[in-house]
Amino acid sequence: MADVRRETAFTKGHGTENDFVLVPALDGALQLSAADVAYLADRRAGIGGDGVIRVVPSALADEPEVRAQAEQAAWFMDYRNADGSVAEMCGNGTRVFAAYLRREGLEAGDDITIATRTGVKSVRFEADGSIAVDLGAWRLSEPDAAAAQGYDALVHVPGIDPLSALSLDLGNPHTVAALPEQVDLDTLDLHLPPAVHPQPPHGTNVELVRPLGPGHLSMRVHERGVGETRSCGTGACAAALATRYWAGGGDEWVVDVPGGRLRVRVLPSGTVELAGPAVLVADGTVRLP
Amino acid sequence: MADVRRETAFTKGHGTENDFVLVPALDGALQLSAADVAYLADRRAGIGGDGVIRVVPSALADEPEVRAQAEQAAWFMDYRNADGSVAEMCGNGTRVFAAYLRREGLEAGDDITIATRTGVKSVRFEADGSIAVDLGAWRLSEPDAAAAQGYDALVHVPGIDPLSALSLDLGNPHTVAALPEQVDLDTLDLHLPPAVHPQPPHGTNVELVRPLGPGHLSMRVHERGVGETRSCGTGACAAALATRYWAGGGDEWVVDVPGGRLRVRVLPSGTVELAGPAVLVADGTVRLP
Repeated sequence: MADVRRETAFTKGHGTENDFVLVPALDGALQLSAADVAYLADRRAGIGGDGVIRVVPSALADEPEVRAQAEQAAWFMDYRNADGSVAEMCGNGTRVFAAYLRREGLEAGDDITIATRTGVKSVRFEADGSIAVDLGAWRLSEPDAAAAQGYDALVHVPGIDPLSALSLDLGNPHTVAALPEQVDLDTLDLHLPPAVHPQPPHGTNVELVRPLGPGHLSMRVHERGVGETRSCGTGACAAALATRYWAGGGDEWVVDVPGGRLRVRVLPSGTVELAGPAVLVADGTVRLP
Repeated sequence: MADVRRETAFTKGHGTENDFVLVPALDGALQLSAADVAYLADRRAGIGGDGVIRVVPSALADEPEVRAQAEQAAWFMDYRNADGSVAEMCGNGTRVFAAYLRREGLEAGDDITIATRTGVKSVRFEADGSIAVDLGAWRLSEPDAAAAQGYDALVHVPGIDPLSALSLDLGNPHTVAALPEQVDLDTLDLHLPPAVHPQPPHGTNVELVRPLGPGHLSMRVHERGVGETRSCGTGACAAALATRYWAGGGDEWVVDVPGGRLRVRVLPSGTVELAGPAVLVADGTVRLP
């Protein structure tokens, strides 16, 4: 009996173990249903990834606001969450997407641009192999409360006292808590989402931070709707920005996450840049359900 | 700079979402270090799987006891655990391995044999697409205690009363507990290994079973050293064999696991057979570290 399932090419890649399945749709024809995406992202029944990225010419995107970016950025990162839903952006995903464009010869030069659902992103290939992306503007969620106390929330993690925390908006919501000296980052129980008070209306990503010295911290992250992950690009930026706020300054940060090391820079423009490795692990053909 | 990392072909497949990375070594040359295996099995930094299977001609196996099987079985399932350690056997892995041999034209016919570290296994391709493997002999671990009470152990799962359980040996150790009516299988907390008393010296795999009617049960499994998995072939057999013991008979069982449906048969020879689907999801090339 002939196998009538569709087949498609794929590449698996990761940035500090935040991993993605990339699917080329270079002529714009290949569409992925939510079920296709969930299958590709399924770590046991499919390929497996934190998200799925369709590689599409910006001029052929379904979204008019993406097609409007086509003059500035040739390729659109059509990012989807592992459950098949459409996502606005993904910092590490952008870096892996850039590595793919360069390897495939779709973009050349050390400075490229990528079309996303939140506008054109600038990407820079660095001499050490790192890939840096400007993630754009950020802000404190509750600047008045933060100005008064340095904090605007409490984070509850099982087995330890409540932690004072700061809420930031990087296009998605983050709540960052620094750990007191006596609490071990590695042994925190992040099996369940940490409770946050006041409870953010649409949930939040929670970063637990251990400052390690000037411009250096380590962190773990519980991603909203996902669970603990090995890395989160906007989470690394939020952790650096919160620690910078508490420290009263510092524009260059090294952020150690379980999956590796990222660098975060606050740019003179006021935007925040995420840099680090991006690895293309495997290439092949997958049968869609 | 040239990329000097090694590349190898791979196939990803699963049986009821117990998933594997298969790596062909058809001329016996490709060796996988423990680090290679751990990389291939890494769900975020590599490909991802519960285990890794090297496809090797039996006559070219490193192990003399496998080479001795070459007359009966042409291909050796060189199975490794996700951490890179050598494993004796894997029921679902054998079924996926058989699907690969057939698709690649390495074996033909509906009845084939496979060389493993625990001897030659017989595999049958069924008309409905299922693949059945005879997993061999099994026994109660404590037949005297079981004969007296029907049980020989207690299993402790957080939030519920201790469960009476039966210990079986299928080449690997299993402890099977049936849930009382009022306890919901789906909501059991298997985040941590259930405690078993008396404590087995080398640990055990724990199956929690909900009998659903004659010859039908559903189960969840916590695998020794791994955690909860979507399916475990020997675990499904142990669950059926324990329920059969308590029920006083029945040689044909349907076992629902989180990853799908398996069938278990007690054969006239006294051995136990595991049957179910095996899916080859994707094929490609992976760069080894």
